[in-house]
Amino acid sequence: MELIYVLDILGTFAFAISGALVAFDKKFDLFGVLIIAFVTAVGGGMLRDVLIDAHPINWIGDLNYLYTIFAAVIFTILFKSKIFYLSKTMFLFDTIGISVFTLLGLEKGLSFNLHPIIALIMGMVSAVFGGVLRDVLTNKIPLIFEKEIYASACLAGGIVYLILNECNVADNIIFVISAVVVIAIRVIAVKFHLQLPKIKDDLFTKN
Amino acid sequence: MELIYVLDILGTFAFAISGALVAFDKKFDLFGVLIIAFVTAVGGGMLRDVLIDAHPINWIGDLNYLYTIFAAVIFTILFKSKIFYLSKTMFLFDTIGISVFTLLGLEKGLSFNLHPIIALIMGMVSAVFGGVLRDVLTNKIPLIFEKEIYASACLAGGIVYLILNECNVADNIIFVISAVVVIAIRVIAVKFHLQLPKIKDDLFTKN
Amino acid sequence: MELIYVLDILGTFAFAISGALVAFDKKFDLFGVLIIAFVTAVGGGMLRDVLIDAHPINWIGDLNYLYTIFAAVIFTILFKSKIFYLSKTMFLFDTIGISVFTLLGLEKGLSFNLHPIIALIMGMVSAVFGGVLRDVLTNKIPLIFEKEIYASACLAGGIVYLILNECNVADNIIFVISAVVVIAIRVIAVKFHLQLPKIKDDLFTKN
Repeated sequence: MELIYVLDILGTFAFAISGALVAFDKKFDLFGVLIIAFVTAVGGGMLRDVLIDAHPINWIGDLNYLYTIFAAVIFTILFKSKIFYLSKTMFLFDTIGISVFTLLGLEKGLSFNLHPIIALIMGMVSAVFGGVLRDVLTNKIPLIFEKEIYASACLAGGIVYLILNECNVADNIIFVISAVVVIAIRVIAVKFHLQLPKIKDDLFTKN
Repeated sequence: MELIYVLDILGTFAFAISGALVAFDKKFDLFGVLIIAFVTAVGGGMLRDVLIDAHPINWIGDLNYLYTIFAAVIFTILFKSKIFYLSKTMFLFDTIGISVFTLLGLEKGLSFNLHPIIALIMGMVSAVFGGVLRDVLTNKIPLIFEKEIYASACLAGGIVYLILNECNVADNIIFVISAVVVIAIRVIAVKFHLQLPKIKDDLFTKN
Repeated sequence: MELIYVLDILGTFAFAISGALVAFDKKFDLFGVLIIAFVTAVGGGMLRDVLIDAHPINWIGDLNYLYTIFAAVIFTILFKSKIFYLSKTMFLFDTIGISVFTLLGLEKGLSFNLHPIIALIMGMVSAVFGGVLRDVLTNKIPLIFEKEIYASACLAGGIVYLILNECNVADNIIFVISAVVVIAIRVIAVKFHLQLPKIKDDLFTKN
């Protein structure tokens, strides 16, 4: 599906920019910016492919990911003062990115004959672990562990995908519906500041 | 060996609880707690399997690990205020866990025709690196580098295993004796606050 | 090529010492020192081999790496008060290390029929990621992202290698010339305090 590939590249572009911005913020040099952009954009898929033994792994098998990351870093350097004005566009690309990464990761897992639960996890790893690796390399506690509905959106979209897949719905339709679920949850969560529940600390000491 | 599988699952359960407790303490959301519990419980074996190219890796090849981790997280949420009263039971499960993880990792290494030294390292990786990954993801210096006799207990048990294996002792007996060595060293070390020697800092500047 | 193997081992020795010194500085126990020395010395090649599916990976396939790391840790313990007087020798070994690691990594990538750009990246991963893993495990922002010309030296040497390789220059000559490029850039950079450009922070807020 040509369109999905385009969306995958768009998502890679958005993820790479978000990584590059974090690295600029940390005052990394050019090389550091490239690495963080790279890890953010393809780290999730790379981890997935290593775990399921899918060689060549994502960015080794398709150089377009590398070129996209290069382009994203150059774009960030040139337009970084304007990227804040583009925040809605960036949010859109980013949200498209996580939905496409989730569903492509899930599909790859299924195509490797993994159990649906494992394939679902692989979808989430694809979408989420680029950001985790970025945070580990920049010495922060991964954002996703603390206040993101991000992962839940991926999970919900993945589950919808698996259910529709069981019902033999056509592939394209499954993909579109599941992607809409991911995007909708993400947009609604950000709009209304939804978060996953936290287990209160005082339950520990009292109770 | 049925019993060893049960002990492996018990150890996974204990490791997952210890990971979940760290994540609760860091105020992670539910998703973050699941990931840290997961990484603590199966991270060591996962790293081992990736390094020795043993696919499907541990938790992909056997879903019981995932179910055990889920159960451990639910258990932690329900009984977290009482887990402190269970600290002796937890310590027992945890200690069983490291002994079984070490020896199963070592056996897996040998079954892949690795050099005994490499197999020994794989046993230690299995037992120890779940905790290292947990600490990296929660942005702490891995505990094990600073004050744990943990790894030495695994090392000693692994060496005993290899020696008895050379002497053609029966498999079951080797496993029991080596496990007892790991458990005994761990218990004695904790009881008497033993630590590995540290090279004093002032040796650097003076001397 | 015998000589290159000797240089590879020398580089491993130097990297292991640099890792051990960081770990001593952090007051890790003996086990922690061994792990950090190990990761610094063979972490880059290990990551490369996992990514390109080259099994057995570096230190599993050749025990000499392990023995070298052991020797380096013992050497560091015995002579740590004198290593500072050896700083020029250490710098020489370290610089030889990064040049040899880069070129051997690149060659390994090419021998696996990877695209030259990917092979170039694999050379840099081999030389640089041991240090990145060391910094992640000791809870620091990887040095290389902030102020090192290190990676650029590897990159330049790798590019020279690929160009000469296209021109069908003899293998030995390619290796020597490329290694000299890496070493020269590194030495000049350290001598004249050269750094990669940083994108100024105020470009973000103003401009």
